[in-house]
Amino acid sequence: MGNCVQGVKDFCLRPKNTNIRLRLPAVAFVWQISMIILFGVFIRYDEESDTHWVEFKKEHNVTSDSENDFYFRYPSFQDVHVMIFVGFGFLMTFLKRYSFGAVGFNFLIAAFGLQWALLMQGWFHFLDYTDGKIKIGVENLINADFCVAGCLIAYGAVLGKVSPVQLLVMTLFGVTLFAVEEYIILDLIHAKDAGGSMVIHTFGGYYGLAISWVLYRPNMDQSKRLQGSVYHSDVFAMVGTLFLWMFWPSFNSAITDHGDGQHRAAINTYLALASTVLTTFAISSLFEKKGKLDMVHVQNSTLAGGVAVGTAAEFMLTPYGSLIVGFCCGILSTLGYIYVSPFMEKRLKIQDTCGIHNLHAMPGVIGGIVGAITAAAASKEVYGEEGLINTFDFEGDFKDRVPTIQGGYQAAGLCVAIVFGIGGGILVGMILRLPIWGDPADENCFNDEIYWEVPEDEESIPPVLEYNNHMMNKHQDISESNFSVEQS
Amino acid sequence: MGNCVQGVKDFCLRPKNTNIRLRLPAVAFVWQISMIILFGVFIRYDEESDTHWVEFKKEHNVTSDSENDFYFRYPSFQDVHVMIFVGFGFLMTFLKRYSFGAVGFNFLIAAFGLQWALLMQGWFHFLDYTDGKIKIGVENLINADFCVAGCLIAYGAVLGKVSPVQLLVMTLFGVTLFAVEEYIILDLIHAKDAGGSMVIHTFGGYYGLAISWVLYRPNMDQSKRLQGSVYHSDVFAMVGTLFLWMFWPSFNSAITDHGDGQHRAAINTYLALASTVLTTFAISSLFEKKGKLDMVHVQNSTLAGGVAVGTAAEFMLTPYGSLIVGFCCGILSTLGYIYVSPFMEKRLKIQDTCGIHNLHAMPGVIGGIVGAITAAAASKEVYGEEGLINTFDFEGDFKDRVPTIQGGYQAAGLCVAIVFGIGGGILVGMILRLPIWGDPADENCFNDEIYWEVPEDEESIPPVLEYNNHMMNKHQDISESNFSVEQS
Amino acid sequence: MGNCVQGVKDFCLRPKNTNIRLRLPAVAFVWQISMIILFGVFIRYDEESDTHWVEFKKEHNVTSDSENDFYFRYPSFQDVHVMIFVGFGFLMTFLKRYSFGAVGFNFLIAAFGLQWALLMQGWFHFLDYTDGKIKIGVENLINADFCVAGCLIAYGAVLGKVSPVQLLVMTLFGVTLFAVEEYIILDLIHAKDAGGSMVIHTFGGYYGLAISWVLYRPNMDQSKRLQGSVYHSDVFAMVGTLFLWMFWPSFNSAITDHGDGQHRAAINTYLALASTVLTTFAISSLFEKKGKLDMVHVQNSTLAGGVAVGTAAEFMLTPYGSLIVGFCCGILSTLGYIYVSPFMEKRLKIQDTCGIHNLHAMPGVIGGIVGAITAAAASKEVYGEEGLINTFDFEGDFKDRVPTIQGGYQAAGLCVAIVFGIGGGILVGMILRLPIWGDPADENCFNDEIYWEVPEDEESIPPVLEYNNHMMNKHQDISESNFSVEQS
Repeated sequence: MGNCVQGVKDFCLRPKNTNIRLRLPAVAFVWQISMIILFGVFIRYDEESDTHWVEFKKEHNVTSDSENDFYFRYPSFQDVHVMIFVGFGFLMTFLKRYSFGAVGFNFLIAAFGLQWALLMQGWFHFLDYTDGKIKIGVENLINADFCVAGCLIAYGAVLGKVSPVQLLVMTLFGVTLFAVEEYIILDLIHAKDAGGSMVIHTFGGYYGLAISWVLYRPNMDQSKRLQGSVYHSDVFAMVGTLFLWMFWPSFNSAITDHGDGQHRAAINTYLALASTVLTTFAISSLFEKKGKLDMVHVQNSTLAGGVAVGTAAEFMLTPYGSLIVGFCCGILSTLGYIYVSPFMEKRLKIQDTCGIHNLHAMPGVIGGIVGAITAAAASKEVYGEEGLINTFDFEGDFKDRVPTIQGGYQAAGLCVAIVFGIGGGILVGMILRLPIWGDPADENCFNDEIYWEVPEDEESIPPVLEYNNHMMNKHQDISESNFSVEQS
Repeated sequence: MGNCVQGVKDFCLRPKNTNIRLRLPAVAFVWQISMIILFGVFIRYDEESDTHWVEFKKEHNVTSDSENDFYFRYPSFQDVHVMIFVGFGFLMTFLKRYSFGAVGFNFLIAAFGLQWALLMQGWFHFLDYTDGKIKIGVENLINADFCVAGCLIAYGAVLGKVSPVQLLVMTLFGVTLFAVEEYIILDLIHAKDAGGSMVIHTFGGYYGLAISWVLYRPNMDQSKRLQGSVYHSDVFAMVGTLFLWMFWPSFNSAITDHGDGQHRAAINTYLALASTVLTTFAISSLFEKKGKLDMVHVQNSTLAGGVAVGTAAEFMLTPYGSLIVGFCCGILSTLGYIYVSPFMEKRLKIQDTCGIHNLHAMPGVIGGIVGAITAAAASKEVYGEEGLINTFDFEGDFKDRVPTIQGGYQAAGLCVAIVFGIGGGILVGMILRLPIWGDPADENCFNDEIYWEVPEDEESIPPVLEYNNHMMNKHQDISESNFSVEQS
Repeated sequence: MGNCVQGVKDFCLRPKNTNIRLRLPAVAFVWQISMIILFGVFIRYDEESDTHWVEFKKEHNVTSDSENDFYFRYPSFQDVHVMIFVGFGFLMTFLKRYSFGAVGFNFLIAAFGLQWALLMQGWFHFLDYTDGKIKIGVENLINADFCVAGCLIAYGAVLGKVSPVQLLVMTLFGVTLFAVEEYIILDLIHAKDAGGSMVIHTFGGYYGLAISWVLYRPNMDQSKRLQGSVYHSDVFAMVGTLFLWMFWPSFNSAITDHGDGQHRAAINTYLALASTVLTTFAISSLFEKKGKLDMVHVQNSTLAGGVAVGTAAEFMLTPYGSLIVGFCCGILSTLGYIYVSPFMEKRLKIQDTCGIHNLHAMPGVIGGIVGAITAAAASKEVYGEEGLINTFDFEGDFKDRVPTIQGGYQAAGLCVAIVFGIGGGILVGMILRLPIWGDPADENCFNDEIYWEVPEDEESIPPVLEYNNHMMNKHQDISESNFSVEQS
């Protein structure tokens, strides 16, 4: 995997062309026009967002507009929306010269991905078979944001090392894979996953790690000068961290049952996250020689509890159960940054820019396991007879399922997420290796100057001449036109 | 317009005095005390925010507090509030040394404007004729924020070139004009304009452009060194962009009908904005020689879809219709930054600091046209009989109006907004030309040091001695007291 | 108070050891594990967040999930949550090299404090005597955030001068004291305090000031080079200011009565804050020689109106009454920064880093007084018979209380808050003087390098060798191991 096959090799070694002037617009236009056509064919308003709502109310004896799902979910939707665009976007601004790419490309792929997600998830979950249309409402918007979250997680692993065109490809396939695995896990297996520990975080994490593995760059130390933060970029990243942290209760409760379901999911997430902060700070200080705290841990590991409580948030996890989950995840995630990430980079050849293994993949797996155990331990005594049925949707085809069995299916769901993540990631990684996407050379990774007009200021870091290092000193006569970026 | 009349000329050429020590406090105090008196005379709580609500509920058979309008609108109100203060404020922080002025003066004029807006809009729309009082609730707060938005848009055109006293004057008149044109458009003409494409964006955009035209500064290249961003100021501006982008669905749905109206407006806006992002990135890359992306486009043009979908957001625009609107606006707005803004500056003598023509004025006009077409195309088949009446409020005086006629009135509303914007802007611009407001000299535009105590740091840029350039070397003996800012 | 007793003196004079490698983790782990145990024993879901909600609904004839308290309070909760973590956190990032400490330690102590607050407040207010458990729902989460706010206010006074271990101790005691005074004020005295002018701001303000007085550092000018802002840190602080300002209406209305109570509290706060902005800008400009505005005032004093309207926000304060409160507070708070803070530092030996006296303590007292007057002036004519009872909860043990008497009790509540603040602060300050907590030397205050791994960049400011100044030149042979930070 670490090498191109011989035939492609020479092609790969030619100077990198990072000029995306035709490729990015072409892809964007083709895809956006496709979206318009597909939306025209398939997507309509659902009964709660259609002007026929007034008739719907009469037919269904709905006495108040406050019963419209909009009012149950819109505040949570907006919180999730902030997490996707500001949370994920700013969390990745920590690099000293890749803040434009972090927040800008995050914006681009999220805006693209959510449209495709509405379609993919619509076909699988919301298709009205009477007229072949997908009917959308606020819950679909939340689901689309969730789906996009999986791809943004994956972006964290390859941050600074790929072109925006690669990111669009990665998102297109990511959303597609997401919709399929989500359908298998939630509908076929009938596992519950309110906050997406499995469906979003485990899948997204392994998807990104697998892609990063396939795209391994052995000479990435050539851009070492750019692989770090500066003081203010770390503060910007805290904007992302905090908006993720604060709104995570909304994330985990956004699509749970009205009433106690949303209420409980929010409480559990709030508590798990609080607990995670304490243990993250503790481990960060304990494992540093002089007891100093590391911003990388504070920015990332404090969020692990929200990931790990995702599946079980709507269950009767109990408040102290939530604290325990958060407690463990703060420890494990921080240790992950200290020990696992360097190990992965050296031994497994996985370069994980944002440490998504420690923030999403591993906590996601823990979340899936916690969910399976909590489900298996559910009982009528604790949940109440109706409460048990409501919480696990033991209705219709699944009315004979019992908690212990459900626990097994939850575990099965986790496996599906891992398999889709790793398998899909390897596949997509292979596609992204094609030398047509405009990715940067090793020495120009983590540098906004490659894809952005960057204002000149005293901190400006010019990109390196764009051809592979081993060719240096050989082809000094290569014509100017081959370089997308000049030495400035 | 480009010159003072001869009599005023000499007066204008005296050294600029930017010391606002007496003027700003005087204006602020007089106005704030006036507000208190006028509020004392006119403003009271409405029945939903008064302690008599408990009796109101009984009289009107309201069974639940959840029917209080507060719960239908407060989450949207807070989102709008964030757009006004963080969104608009931070969007304008992109200049390297005008971030204090951007976010600070935005804060000042918004806080002032919303009080005056509550009164002006109250007199026109919410006056209780039984006791001559204006009764306010959460919807009034949203409307006041909307009204202020028009003035903040106008601020974008003159950013860095005016004094805070001028901004207060501009806001006072802006809010007044806004309330009148809003009354004409929404009440007399009975046009619909949920998200304010016409009432807010078209009016605010042309109001600002007209003022900027009257205040044209031929020698503004003297502050050229300050007319650009630095790396971190561009990231700050993205905070503004993203909060505007994310909360725009709340903006467009904040005062639409309960139930399907709010629901549909949010969906349409969400989709239009997503589509705009794709085409903005595409055009930005396509029209740059080396295919690099421009932060100016990403910060601004990505929002154009939200503006353009404002009027039609509550109509049955259909999801793909929203995508198409966003698609076109991303293209047009980005091209506007590339071609129209330079043209306007060179040929039309309109200096538009933030490019509000491309983000608000033009997309607002498009939004008005889209609204007119969508309204004219409405039918009972699509909307349902009751739905059509509800959506367009074909009730009372307007119960005989039909969609095609409504389309015509929508277009008329757009014209009113343009006329008020340009006419009002020219008028107010004349007032702002009076040399009593403490505006900065050409060479000190875009410099926070003129109006703010700026911490000394390595990036500090001292202001230029404050008298007009052509007088340099003539009056070296001008007494110290004439200068508000010394060479530091 | 300014000196240790003789026995401790020598101990105090030994070189400062700021290595918190064992102390911080030890405290964090012990406390987090205690939390888990106590939560396991005491904390359960309440009836609205428990799966038995479906049965509860039937028993109590609740027809809709929209009656679940979650939907009345969750949007406000999230706004409050943002104020606690982003608002308070970023407001304190203004110092040039203490942004990590500001936002990071704010995060740490808030996450710790809210857990302890759930327990303390639970024991006093929410204990179910049938089973000895505390039942929590969304209102408890808001109350816990409120409680934490008191401690974060106190942090503002000692910002940059204490270690994170001290902050945890300060928070532990602060939350404890808060819960007791809150119980006395709200339950025993039966004062009303919706937005916590007394309970949160007065208490928190004086608590912090008293601690800062006990911890007075006579030689703090040794870190003078770090006691100021830089351009970008001031912009970061505006993120905090604006999120506090915008969401303050949610803060003051979060736990008021459903319906008109929340509605009115939001309106009053919105208006008071708008008015404060105008007078803050006016006074800031008026009292500076050249009329320039000071960011310190804009960042802080603009918020004073929200504090001062806290108690009376749910009363019939009237819209113009709110404007008047904001008007006065903007003036007084800004004058506080100009005159009172320097006076307190020089004469009273109180070093108040963020000026919490002017933003919280004094406006809190004003708020308490405004509340007392407004309550005393309440009448059945204005409130309506039922409205009066609802607003002041003249029910049960308090059904015979009348407004004038209530006014007296409100004043009594204010006194309790002041006494608890000052008394508790002195006590806790004494504890924090023990030389075991790892606080920084005078010359290393306001420097992130002491407790954080700080990325090296051109602005980096190395810490000074860590021993007390007067010992300089005496013990040059002190072994390296005594220093937690080397000259880098």
